[in-house]
Amino acid sequence: MSERVVIIGGGFAGLNAARGLRRSEVDVTLIDRENYHLFQPLLYQVATAALNPSDIAYPLRSALRRQRNATVLLADAVDIDLARSSVRLDNGDLPYDYLIIATGATHSYFGHEPWREHAPGLKTIEDALEMRRRIYLAYEAAEREAAPDRRKDWLTFVVVGAGPTGVELAGALAEIGRQSLAGGYRRIDREEVRVLLLEGQDRVLPEYSARSSAKALSQLERLGVEVRPQAFVTDIDRYGVSIGDESVGARTVLWAAGVSASPLVKSLGVPLDSAGRVEVEPDLSVPGHPRVFVAGDLARVGFGDGIVPGVAPAAIQQGSHAAANVRRLLEGYATRPFTYVDKGSLATIGRAAAVAEVGPLKFGGLLAWGAWLLIHIFYLIGFRNRVWVLSGWAWSYVTFKRGARLITGRQTHEDLPRIERS
Amino acid sequence: MSERVVIIGGGFAGLNAARGLRRSEVDVTLIDRENYHLFQPLLYQVATAALNPSDIAYPLRSALRRQRNATVLLADAVDIDLARSSVRLDNGDLPYDYLIIATGATHSYFGHEPWREHAPGLKTIEDALEMRRRIYLAYEAAEREAAPDRRKDWLTFVVVGAGPTGVELAGALAEIGRQSLAGGYRRIDREEVRVLLLEGQDRVLPEYSARSSAKALSQLERLGVEVRPQAFVTDIDRYGVSIGDESVGARTVLWAAGVSASPLVKSLGVPLDSAGRVEVEPDLSVPGHPRVFVAGDLARVGFGDGIVPGVAPAAIQQGSHAAANVRRLLEGYATRPFTYVDKGSLATIGRAAAVAEVGPLKFGGLLAWGAWLLIHIFYLIGFRNRVWVLSGWAWSYVTFKRGARLITGRQTHEDLPRIERS
Repeated sequence: MSERVVIIGGGFAGLNAARGLRRSEVDVTLIDRENYHLFQPLLYQVATAALNPSDIAYPLRSALRRQRNATVLLADAVDIDLARSSVRLDNGDLPYDYLIIATGATHSYFGHEPWREHAPGLKTIEDALEMRRRIYLAYEAAEREAAPDRRKDWLTFVVVGAGPTGVELAGALAEIGRQSLAGGYRRIDREEVRVLLLEGQDRVLPEYSARSSAKALSQLERLGVEVRPQAFVTDIDRYGVSIGDESVGARTVLWAAGVSASPLVKSLGVPLDSAGRVEVEPDLSVPGHPRVFVAGDLARVGFGDGIVPGVAPAAIQQGSHAAANVRRLLEGYATRPFTYVDKGSLATIGRAAAVAEVGPLKFGGLLAWGAWLLIHIFYLIGFRNRVWVLSGWAWSYVTFKRGARLITGRQTHEDLPRIERS
Repeated sequence: MSERVVIIGGGFAGLNAARGLRRSEVDVTLIDRENYHLFQPLLYQVATAALNPSDIAYPLRSALRRQRNATVLLADAVDIDLARSSVRLDNGDLPYDYLIIATGATHSYFGHEPWREHAPGLKTIEDALEMRRRIYLAYEAAEREAAPDRRKDWLTFVVVGAGPTGVELAGALAEIGRQSLAGGYRRIDREEVRVLLLEGQDRVLPEYSARSSAKALSQLERLGVEVRPQAFVTDIDRYGVSIGDESVGARTVLWAAGVSASPLVKSLGVPLDSAGRVEVEPDLSVPGHPRVFVAGDLARVGFGDGIVPGVAPAAIQQGSHAAANVRRLLEGYATRPFTYVDKGSLATIGRAAAVAEVGPLKFGGLLAWGAWLLIHIFYLIGFRNRVWVLSGWAWSYVTFKRGARLITGRQTHEDLPRIERS
């Protein structure tokens, strides 16, 4: 019987790990709680109605349908029993000979759990649809609201955290504000729409160079985003955010700040860092468990003075590397340490604007935006998804419209402003 | 001040009523609980993953943005106070001089409310996504299930009701079964997939001619659908349906049977028929209330020996007619009675198959399917929606794939089959 390789998680790391084993005589089982691979870098575009969920999600089963040694199972991994070499699932157990854990990260509220309800984060399709619902519902509420001061709160959007996701969200929110002019609202004035981007550190995109950061700042300001560096959020409720003594009225607050590793590894009994990531060996294996690997956002791997960032290219490289090490062990060789190849960083800031860093090269504007566009299309899985996303972008670019402005999900409207007409 | 016309509901009737008043000196307010107009005839394609929600939904605000006398409000209409000429909303009241009620119909379980949980119907985007979730989750569950008899229940799909929606759903389900071959499942055999279409009357499409019905039946059977006429469902639970003494194991049951009018009019104190529709005057007004009109599925209007059917063309005609009668009253003329122009009926049954009835003309197959396609594209609102739907269809037709096979919505997998691997 073939050796059993179990992979938990069908993100960039897990999917690439599975593919890395396509020519091996092993029995690969990929489990995920969703039936699709999600292209997370474009999730903010679903949240802001530019793309549909199915544009950036691809069924895992289809992705691996031709790989005959791979089986996809829809399941929740509840626990890992390293002693018995078995993964406990929602209903059943899955024994393994080799295990690759790639369940990624979720957002963290730094211990402020009540904030979760008022400031949704962005990790899943459901998160993105919830953000979309809140953004467009806020405009509808503003249109109902007769009192200018209360209407202002409905038209104030706060993004917490100015990493790539926060910058992208803030840029898109500013564009939605401009587009609302043409949206058929009767009461809303474009000038009433405010987008605030709050960052605890002293500049936007703190992981980028100072030059790119400055470029991003000027592009954000051109779009009308109010950028507030060194702003520490001290409270969030349904009426707004507090920044120390200052209180900002805002009915829509989006969370793009903390990240914490998937809780699945908490019970492993192996060293974790403060964000909950596994402190893996250089070959990505779990200390003391040479047949168990961790890949993607869940792994803490050193790189230069710091660590490998939690970005898609790193997850892809780690997933492939974990698979390569499994192959080496199967063939009786020693594993190899992982080396991260930094292909650069890219963040987009609204229409035809972005910043890029590739090695010593740092550039912005239209060129960076073009690079961003090509790279994202290239890494999207599936011919249909590529064509759909490109057409969606082209349509939005030409018409200045967003195609998916639907408020979905069950709701009552009782908490929306009172309608007063004579 | 202009006279106030309030329209409740942004479906085919309500939206066309609003447009019919675009040149009148009135103040039109259209209220709807959703922010979009939904193209309901294609909702089954969202339920079966062929189209995205945003392909068949169009923001009401955009639809009326150029009509300066119209305001769109997102709100629930809770009650109508005919004596005070005012609509009570979730939060606030809206007084009117003229009222057009167009809140349509919902599905009815004929008094069996517990069935709702086990057999979702199809009226809203949320309904369609719930159907999609159940259909694709059933395949995932079947892939987890080791026991052939229990796997069979997961692969048995029952559609209750063989009107146009039921026939379309059953056809699409049979196609999904065929496509599953190419879907990358390792345990599912195409031969295990069963689609049953249950109908209480003695044939499918009972509102169509016997000839079209026979044609539809043969097209359904060619797709592998098991059609069961004169089958009265006596019970539905999470394990299947009962038809008298017979019990059919099926983990997915879809409801396409009863329709009942929107409950909003129950408290009006005006005559309703057994399905809850308002027995309107020939001019579509509510008896005793000449400035209040009812249009669309909510109105019961005689036509020949029977009544005007609850289809999109009838709703469009009634919405326009109600608006025309408001205009006549505004200008001091008497209202005119509504006359339904039957433009024919069309139902599609899977790939390149449909039945059509236009006056004395009855035809099927590719020609009817082509007509169905053109008419649906023509009536879709919005250039983008038309292009997207046509491209989606073309892609599916060529590749035999469905583009939106996502299982979304919060879930746990604990009730899915136990995973047993050695």
